[in-house]
Amino acid sequence: MPSESIKIIEKADLVYLESFTSPIYVKHEEEIKNLVHGDFKIAKRWMVEDGKEILNASRSSIVVLLSYGDPYIATTHIELRTRARLEDIETKTIHSTSAITAMIGEIGLQFYKVGKIVTIMSDKKSVTTPYTTIFKNLIEGLHSIILLEYNEDQNFFLDPKTAILSLLDIEKEQKRKVVSNDTFAIVPSRVGMKTQKITSGKFSDLLKMDFGEPPHSIIITGKLHFTESDAINALTDCLSKPADNSNDIKSISIQMIEKYVPMVREALNEIKPFYSDAKEFQDILQNAELYIDDAENFLKEGKDENAVLSIGYADGLVDALRIAKGIDPKM
Amino acid sequence: MPSESIKIIEKADLVYLESFTSPIYVKHEEEIKNLVHGDFKIAKRWMVEDGKEILNASRSSIVVLLSYGDPYIATTHIELRTRARLEDIETKTIHSTSAITAMIGEIGLQFYKVGKIVTIMSDKKSVTTPYTTIFKNLIEGLHSIILLEYNEDQNFFLDPKTAILSLLDIEKEQKRKVVSNDTFAIVPSRVGMKTQKITSGKFSDLLKMDFGEPPHSIIITGKLHFTESDAINALTDCLSKPADNSNDIKSISIQMIEKYVPMVREALNEIKPFYSDAKEFQDILQNAELYIDDAENFLKEGKDENAVLSIGYADGLVDALRIAKGIDPKM
Repeated sequence: MPSESIKIIEKADLVYLESFTSPIYVKHEEEIKNLVHGDFKIAKRWMVEDGKEILNASRSSIVVLLSYGDPYIATTHIELRTRARLEDIETKTIHSTSAITAMIGEIGLQFYKVGKIVTIMSDKKSVTTPYTTIFKNLIEGLHSIILLEYNEDQNFFLDPKTAILSLLDIEKEQKRKVVSNDTFAIVPSRVGMKTQKITSGKFSDLLKMDFGEPPHSIIITGKLHFTESDAINALTDCLSKPADNSNDIKSISIQMIEKYVPMVREALNEIKPFYSDAKEFQDILQNAELYIDDAENFLKEGKDENAVLSIGYADGLVDALRIAKGIDPKM
Repeated sequence: MPSESIKIIEKADLVYLESFTSPIYVKHEEEIKNLVHGDFKIAKRWMVEDGKEILNASRSSIVVLLSYGDPYIATTHIELRTRARLEDIETKTIHSTSAITAMIGEIGLQFYKVGKIVTIMSDKKSVTTPYTTIFKNLIEGLHSIILLEYNEDQNFFLDPKTAILSLLDIEKEQKRKVVSNDTFAIVPSRVGMKTQKITSGKFSDLLKMDFGEPPHSIIITGKLHFTESDAINALTDCLSKPADNSNDIKSISIQMIEKYVPMVREALNEIKPFYSDAKEFQDILQNAELYIDDAENFLKEGKDENAVLSIGYADGLVDALRIAKGIDPKM
């Protein structure tokens, strides 16, 4: 805890400890109670969302709202602060270590290579969005931090294994080859606590583990710099060799070019003999050839959209010639 | 500072304070020196990168390496720790608040909507990569955190205004309409210090400001939830109304469809009269029409690659008919 926080807790008339962004450890609650000279209360989600009691108390006394981590990772806390500011209630925030930066550091990954953060909930239907975000992150070679559902009322914390199984289920449905049993992932458990444990390995190996008490997260790694692989090996319980999940990831554009370039080339070769004597069609055949080459070259230059446009165009040229001769188009 | 850190500094035989990830404030250096009972040294970048002196000292005594923020945001610190672990030197890390999570919270933005982090350096050529990343983040509606170059040896910290001007220069070259004088951005200065100031506004307004002492960062906002706009209004010095920078952003696919759909439609209408009597070509004309419609529909469904493939194909069909009649193709 920041040393500044301790001083403020001791001075406060009323201290709330919120219990919805992370499970509260009994030991921590006891430690905090020992610091408090005023009143102490646990604040559930509804109380912070509603905010009236907390804001009213804050008008005439020193009120502290304690949270694990850097508080404004939770949007509920941001909204309470905005309301306080609009009601002319003075606020002061003491930030603290966020598990988000701490876990990336503990594993030895580069924070500059972290993509959009996702949350996986137990409702299976909601897993399509994180699946798509992980796909997009991997295309860019970025690491995905996956936070897991926590519900204070049911004392429920989504198990990393359940989240992994949900991702594998969505894969069966979406078939974008984003995850498989061989996907390399890291499960940081209880980051910042004495019992911190970080396990890494293939999905298939992680599915055999018991990760113990929450909180847990999952990180699916993107492109790995060698210092990152070295760090994962040295700093985590490594069940299988760190592997680059983004190597086999193919953007939709790449998948299209790989499918259509050979297809259109074949279609072009089939149609050539039909037009060997027709001078007015030679330009079309030549253009088709050039645009197939363009598609491959654009892809190499990272100009994916131009590659797709070119192969579509080449296919159109070829299919026009096929349709005109009563041959089935290839598209 | 975390209360745990104070205890460890007091116990240490040797305390390094590194000076390359952030400028050191004299006041902080004095405060730390007052805590140290052992030796105290400033560690420049080369010393931590080289690491030998620090690791050697750590073999037989308690050595502390102090850093502003959450230390492993800097990859140099990760590498030193990996080396220590490989050489069987025991390490312990006390994380702290990172400016990255703190600034997003202070502004009231949702951390879940932050995209890949970028750094802008004074070398203008290097700004193309951050420009492209900001573009990709905006397409996804995400906020971009821009860190600014700091060079301890030259006591140089890149001014936010210089970074904004560099982005506007790259825009002139790349023309993707990513940034303009109307781009809304936020400049957090000296986050976590007593003199913290957060200024927000259009580029044109920010360019008139003096942001004072470093460190500064820049945030270019993506899609704004109304609670985020409210927070920016309430919590920052707002020079102009918070605006959604991602509204006008168009992915390359969208730009292509907007350009090619009307163009191919016109080309198709021009060519129709030439084939009014040719039965074998009616299917081609019909297919072209269908694929133009497909392109528009795929785009609405978010299937950008299919949209581009379809309009390319339609264009190919139409151009084959044009070339065959000696009319210039449209592609």
